[in-house]
Amino acid sequence: MSAIVESVPNFSEGRRQDVIEAIVDAYDSVEGARVIDYSSDPDHNRTVVTLIGSPQAVSEALFRGIAKAAELIDMNEQHGEHPRIGATDVVPFVPIREINLEECAALARALAQRVSEELGIPTYLYAHAATRPDRKVLANIRKGEFEGLKAALEAGDPNRAPDFGPSRLGSAGATVIGARPPLIAYNIYLTTEDVSIAKKIAKAVRHSSGGLRFVQAMGVLVEGRAQVSMNLLDYTRTPLHRVTELVRREAARYGVNIHSAELIGLIPEQALIDAAQWYLQLDNLKPESILEWRIVQSA
Amino acid sequence: MSAIVESVPNFSEGRRQDVIEAIVDAYDSVEGARVIDYSSDPDHNRTVVTLIGSPQAVSEALFRGIAKAAELIDMNEQHGEHPRIGATDVVPFVPIREINLEECAALARALAQRVSEELGIPTYLYAHAATRPDRKVLANIRKGEFEGLKAALEAGDPNRAPDFGPSRLGSAGATVIGARPPLIAYNIYLTTEDVSIAKKIAKAVRHSSGGLRFVQAMGVLVEGRAQVSMNLLDYTRTPLHRVTELVRREAARYGVNIHSAELIGLIPEQALIDAAQWYLQLDNLKPESILEWRIVQSA
Repeated sequence: MSAIVESVPNFSEGRRQDVIEAIVDAYDSVEGARVIDYSSDPDHNRTVVTLIGSPQAVSEALFRGIAKAAELIDMNEQHGEHPRIGATDVVPFVPIREINLEECAALARALAQRVSEELGIPTYLYAHAATRPDRKVLANIRKGEFEGLKAALEAGDPNRAPDFGPSRLGSAGATVIGARPPLIAYNIYLTTEDVSIAKKIAKAVRHSSGGLRFVQAMGVLVEGRAQVSMNLLDYTRTPLHRVTELVRREAARYGVNIHSAELIGLIPEQALIDAAQWYLQLDNLKPESILEWRIVQSA
Repeated sequence: MSAIVESVPNFSEGRRQDVIEAIVDAYDSVEGARVIDYSSDPDHNRTVVTLIGSPQAVSEALFRGIAKAAELIDMNEQHGEHPRIGATDVVPFVPIREINLEECAALARALAQRVSEELGIPTYLYAHAATRPDRKVLANIRKGEFEGLKAALEAGDPNRAPDFGPSRLGSAGATVIGARPPLIAYNIYLTTEDVSIAKKIAKAVRHSSGGLRFVQAMGVLVEGRAQVSMNLLDYTRTPLHRVTELVRREAARYGVNIHSAELIGLIPEQALIDAAQWYLQLDNLKPESILEWRIVQSA
């Protein structure tokens, strides 16, 4: 199989339907890349697009979407609840198959350079593509939003200078481009209605309070059942099975079991195959052992 | 994704390299189908080919392979250790993705009819494509081999009449065509060198001695470690996780654990995803949740 990347570009329009559709159409205009989902929030005044395909096709589609958003959105007029600095606000490349984070970071750098050169939009590299430690975190780049960044650049603040492009903001603002692992939204339901147990388990397993490194978690009550609601930020380093078995162990301490689990949104197939390999103890499972991985592309 | 089938045709030549290559080339001559493996045994005088691709492409490739074998193999001259009735002996269609056993049985019937009509070769339908209960089992159709079947047809035995084509054998003999689920060769190593425990566990889990319906098993010693060596004949009805957990429970009764497991040959991806779903308790996992399943064919 050939390399596959995902991208989840966010653009700053969630109200004008004709503008939203024109931009989504631009993202969906390249053969070999496809918009598989998008959702707009009028209060946030923002749209999130999910795009997958070959690295080349996705890069080209992202460029077209960024160009179209720059044409149709004026950041001097745009307001909404969600923090933003540009018409296209943030663009992560996500490795899915036969491509790694470093290669995605290279795609991010190439796209950022092209956007700055051909469209004159300042671009910042973030997450795994960041050129400076403080730019690993998106919130640092977006500090002060469009208005604050504009003022800082006009004041000549060297710390806010973009990675590529001019140190001033036009009507399209600036765009943050980078690479990150796929995020898995994973909820575990417990055999109890006592939400305090879910909260205790969430606290035990999440990174912020001493738990597993790539886990965010909170305890909530969903339809009368306590749920540990989680984001898994890097399933290659904190895998589903480890999270599940730690939740199971913590639950047992309160006399509770796992009732069931659910995924919100999409999961990379590899995350499930990793779990099967671990539970079945298939120490030497190779991609070549999986029938579908040997199928001709044209089949 | 589009439908994918596997086929594992067996032809009656395992010695003459030029003949083997000519037939394998015929199997590999259709766009959208690919020979991913083949192996010849000179003692058996037989070659097994593994072919995957779209239903249409695989059907066409099988027809070409059968035609080429009929041209190059004379069953009146062919001898080897393995039982056989035809130049192409047996051809199973195996459902892999977005196709079921019934649809594979329909492909088997269509191919059998075409082979009989265009090549004049008698064909028998077996396994899930069988038209009579006694033809579900390959050994019944192959009884007496080429020579015995030839004599029975010449004697006018109505029980041996083929499903399609003439009731007499030419130099290509007859071909058995059908549909069956994918077979998974799955071995579990135990934390003991006592092979008698592996034998007891094999007896407990295999169908023939009262165990799980689609499991064949035996206990063997491999590199100083006891191993339960299994064939899983239908993972959709006797799944990997159930087999694994039953072996684990039986092993525990003898104070032994599972050391590791291994697959021999290929496994359909769905078998691993089913295991992940069961262990993670993802009750409502849908194919649409898996990122790769939503990727454009052209990507």
